[in-house]
Amino acid sequence: MSFRASILSLYPQMFPGHLGESLAGRALERGDWELDTVQIRDFATDRHRSVDDTPAGGGAGMVLRPDVLAAAIDHASPQGDERPRLLMSPRGRPLTQERVRELARGPGAVIVCGRFEGIDQRVIDARALEEVSVGDYVLSGGEPAALTLLDAVVRLLPGVMGNAASGEFESFETGLLEHPHYTRPQDWEERAIPDVLLSGNHAKIEAWRRAQSEELTRQQRPDLLQAKKKPPQG
Amino acid sequence: MSFRASILSLYPQMFPGHLGESLAGRALERGDWELDTVQIRDFATDRHRSVDDTPAGGGAGMVLRPDVLAAAIDHASPQGDERPRLLMSPRGRPLTQERVRELARGPGAVIVCGRFEGIDQRVIDARALEEVSVGDYVLSGGEPAALTLLDAVVRLLPGVMGNAASGEFESFETGLLEHPHYTRPQDWEERAIPDVLLSGNHAKIEAWRRAQSEELTRQQRPDLLQAKKKPPQG
Repeated sequence: MSFRASILSLYPQMFPGHLGESLAGRALERGDWELDTVQIRDFATDRHRSVDDTPAGGGAGMVLRPDVLAAAIDHASPQGDERPRLLMSPRGRPLTQERVRELARGPGAVIVCGRFEGIDQRVIDARALEEVSVGDYVLSGGEPAALTLLDAVVRLLPGVMGNAASGEFESFETGLLEHPHYTRPQDWEERAIPDVLLSGNHAKIEAWRRAQSEELTRQQRPDLLQAKKKPPQG
Repeated sequence: MSFRASILSLYPQMFPGHLGESLAGRALERGDWELDTVQIRDFATDRHRSVDDTPAGGGAGMVLRPDVLAAAIDHASPQGDERPRLLMSPRGRPLTQERVRELARGPGAVIVCGRFEGIDQRVIDARALEEVSVGDYVLSGGEPAALTLLDAVVRLLPGVMGNAASGEFESFETGLLEHPHYTRPQDWEERAIPDVLLSGNHAKIEAWRRAQSEELTRQQRPDLLQAKKKPPQG
């Protein structure tokens, strides 16, 4: 069984978006992973096909109705579906490479995308939606966040990347940021490749790269070094 | 002058992607913002149109050549172009809503997207590329990251969202996560809207929402509360 993503959205035409291109797109055509979309509006029950209503207690914006969204979720993810149900939301736990790897090992994901509106809290509770945030910024909706999450997951699926990423040192896989890269030409705009990289001494090269990674992480992301030292919270 | 994004990529067909849909797409058609793409391969100088080469010092993967990428950057962003030059990279500083707002107030952005390959460090230094990360996970390339960053920026441009987000409480704008939302029906699956929201007492409603935001932030993202207390580092 291949990884299957089901997207619930008011803008299903945003999918597969950039996931239809390059390696992810070819893997989708081959059936190495599957993507289906559910138009939440198809589960509206009134003749205006309304999906949202004003917020209880007042305030700006609209809120997705729990009954409409729950019907869409129950359709996309009937009893026995073991895929996690995610809600893309800036309120969620920040996405990590560890969670990406977990998702890639699993059967897929049901992903709810809100847009403009909030989501009624009761459907989050009743359908056990896991709120996931791709970063500390506000997007136009859950759709760009879902595309980002899926991109990270799909590249880890068997067969998708081929050898393109195999064995490569990658940021976050070691808890450190990636060291600098250099390639030809050896001299460019009066800037030379560091001598050690041309020395042919593999032990020295490895040590230099490790030191560069550690120094870059210390400068740019001291929080990652902290996270490595401390046991995870919560 | 409207906000102008120039994307440098080996996969320019990934743009505008989801930014061609919904409000961002209509704003693009109206000219409220502009998007152009540059194919990095057009700046290759050999007859095989190569853009990358093996990494100095050995290792897996390929590295984008500094001369080819610099030529593409100099074409997209000639002298006098005041737009910031961003490089989407998991090594970069994490994108924040504050940086998104800064970018939205500015003239645009030149965005370099790597894919599979590393980028020669010398072009990062020589062309003063600002490395930006959208989150602590690895994507298939800079393109999904650039689409995510632009989505966050474009929604803040004048005229794009209309009244859809005006005046709304939003996660990160206050440093707290957003409180729960509720709407009709009042009773759903034996779950009721909290009484306070139906009380009509606006002061009590505001106090309840604030307390919910604080409690949610404490549970989900204690790091945001820390960040509010401490002066920013670095």
